Amino acid sequence: MASVRINAARLWDRLMALGSAGATGRGGVDRQALTEAEAAARRLVISWAGEHELQPSMDAAGNLFLTLAGSDPSLVPVMTGSHLDSQPSGGLFDGAFGVIAGLEVAAALVEADIRPQRSLVVVAWMNEEGCRFVPGMMGSEAFVGLRSLEEIRAVSDAGGITVGTELDRLHAAFPDLARVPVGFPIHFYVEAHIEQGPSLEANDCPIGIVTSIQGKRTFTVSLHGAEAHAGTAPMAERRDAVAALARVLVALHARIGGADSDVKFTAGRVRVVPNAPSVVPGSATFSVDLRHFDEATMLRLADELEAISVAEASPCTVEIQALVNNSPIEFDPVVQDAVGRAATRCGYRATRLPSLAGHDAGPLARRHRAGMIFIPCRDGVSHAETEWAEPAHTFAGAEVLLWTLTDLLQ
Amino acid sequence: MASVRINAARLWDRLMALGSAGATGRGGVDRQALTEAEAAARRLVISWAGEHELQPSMDAAGNLFLTLAGSDPSLVPVMTGSHLDSQPSGGLFDGAFGVIAGLEVAAALVEADIRPQRSLVVVAWMNEEGCRFVPGMMGSEAFVGLRSLEEIRAVSDAGGITVGTELDRLHAAFPDLARVPVGFPIHFYVEAHIEQGPSLEANDCPIGIVTSIQGKRTFTVSLHGAEAHAGTAPMAERRDAVAALARVLVALHARIGGADSDVKFTAGRVRVVPNAPSVVPGSATFSVDLRHFDEATMLRLADELEAISVAEASPCTVEIQALVNNSPIEFDPVVQDAVGRAATRCGYRATRLPSLAGHDAGPLARRHRAGMIFIPCRDGVSHAETEWAEPAHTFAGAEVLLWTLTDLLQ
Repeated sequence: MASVRINAARLWDRLMALGSAGATGRGGVDRQALTEAEAAARRLVISWAGEHELQPSMDAAGNLFLTLAGSDPSLVPVMTGSHLDSQPSGGLFDGAFGVIAGLEVAAALVEADIRPQRSLVVVAWMNEEGCRFVPGMMGSEAFVGLRSLEEIRAVSDAGGITVGTELDRLHAAFPDLARVPVGFPIHFYVEAHIEQGPSLEANDCPIGIVTSIQGKRTFTVSLHGAEAHAGTAPMAERRDAVAALARVLVALHARIGGADSDVKFTAGRVRVVPNAPSVVPGSATFSVDLRHFDEATMLRLADELEAISVAEASPCTVEIQALVNNSPIEFDPVVQDAVGRAATRCGYRATRLPSLAGHDAGPLARRHRAGMIFIPCRDGVSHAETEWAEPAHTFAGAEVLLWTLTDLLQ
Repeated sequence: MASVRINAARLWDRLMALGSAGATGRGGVDRQALTEAEAAARRLVISWAGEHELQPSMDAAGNLFLTLAGSDPSLVPVMTGSHLDSQPSGGLFDGAFGVIAGLEVAAALVEADIRPQRSLVVVAWMNEEGCRFVPGMMGSEAFVGLRSLEEIRAVSDAGGITVGTELDRLHAAFPDLARVPVGFPIHFYVEAHIEQGPSLEANDCPIGIVTSIQGKRTFTVSLHGAEAHAGTAPMAERRDAVAALARVLVALHARIGGADSDVKFTAGRVRVVPNAPSVVPGSATFSVDLRHFDEATMLRLADELEAISVAEASPCTVEIQALVNNSPIEFDPVVQDAVGRAATRCGYRATRLPSLAGHDAGPLARRHRAGMIFIPCRDGVSHAETEWAEPAHTFAGAEVLLWTLTDLLQ
């Protein structure tokens, strides 16, 4: 096994090359789920998988699998990967790193003429980001049965196009791909990813052994007032939905966002109707993304959301829709220990840390033995075009992934 | 002249029929400037003008003219009209009434075999509403030379389509229309319109003699922060543009919107980038529409806008762009008196009142002798699908317009 080697240059070159799919021209990518840009990324990854004799396949949820077939078909596979979709102004590493690193591990095994008994499956999950289609992690949640295919197909984007329509278009664009069922048994799942936080970089540590993922709840809050003419309606008689939005958001940022130092509160999306400069707005909608490691705190803050919104929105009315309700997740100790042994073997310092961001490994961990490997990213920045990881860290992450998977494939 | 008669049924039927152009299916219209829906309205109006032998023509700014040729071509024409474009969820009367009433006056003269010495021109101005393309009153401002054709052609909508592109498309869609220069001498301009406020209805008065238009200033305020991951970026380190927007808008509504009982302050349009639920927003932009009858108050409040925004937006930065700067307008006493005499002749109560909304008559009044006639609208509501005027009031308005124009045509 000593001859198995991660090709650092190829790993880096593919990460950079993948950035051509959905390139924004400002160093980042706009590769939202089920767009042409994301399909272009799938095409690149499938072509690279072909260079290493991996078998591509897809399920009805749009999850892409690249399989290095094991010698014993009676054994369930080990799986690794992440996602290819991005935020509208995303970077080159979030998701992409886990897929390309997985591909590189499979390539290293093939090039060393090693054929494990168990199959190794590299996966790219459909719609992790949850931006164009809300909520995210659709593909991985469908895979483990947390969401039905019918449910995800019915979701539509801002233009009214459904996931179902786009999945049909995706399958039509890849007519030669073998079709596999949504969900199959797996032995372990390991996902490599950038940290999306500052702690590895601050501690000069190349490898993070991820212990857990904080809980996440998301909501859509709609405020309803009455449209009126901006030049004639007296201020005192208005039911201005944007004025209400401002009051509600100031209160929510103070009382929920400021509840304790661990809470994360984000109103990232705002929609106003009719959104015309000289019309008093009749309705305004915003998204809420609330995260915390403590389940009880999450529940309490989510309860306060409605009371605060109703009180501050008056005379506008409030409607709240709950979307995601993910309790905190603990990763499998067996995977954590395997990552630790792999880091030691490669001579890298490693530290145990929680994930503040959500990942496909979250849904996977609710049904399977799963874990994650983090590498540092510059200034902890992600979901931005300036997102960056050092080549040496991508190499370290792929090396540790290689030896973790080798361990778990036994 | 006693045989000249407004056809009440035809006036009403045309107002209702015009609502088919851009009908929303909820009783209103979405007929934004230079859209297919607005072109459909132009087609209807041109076809009706043809029934009365009016000559249609258009200028390079997209203003549509329907001319009843006078017997003495050496005399400059009298003009009446309004606009056919609407807000995204507009009603059946705002703008439409002034065009259809003007058409009805011309029809009444033709049917009574009266040919005035001066020409009577019915106009539909391009982009009064200023919704798709900001700011509004583009056609009338171009006509009187307050804006250049180059300036308005360069304005683009949210999708990046310019007024120039859409004007070229409009002219191509009406290849048979005579082309007239942008701006020509006129003797008087009179615009009939719904009040868009509650005072005529409250006083049970069918006719308003409009004395003035309140001043209007508009701005775009942009707040710039930094995009970050909603799950990982610590609250204390964020520069969240939507959080800043909320603080700024609460302060502006209180301190500018609440300055005195005459002020009108509206933030009707909001845009957030990247507008994704799990990204801390990097930038947020909102429109400001500020109106007041007192010029000095307007100036003072506009000055405060920047100071308040900068103070509340921190740590985000602020950029303010001034768009419209219209000082208050006084209408011509000759026109006001002619409207008063016409109302008396027809037996209608009439009251003098200011306009809280802006109108094409505003720019016209800066260069020509101009005035307006108001009719009541239900609950003072406009810029909404529920906007409504009674058939009897549309008839009264058209009758008073007929006798006002007859007077001014002398």
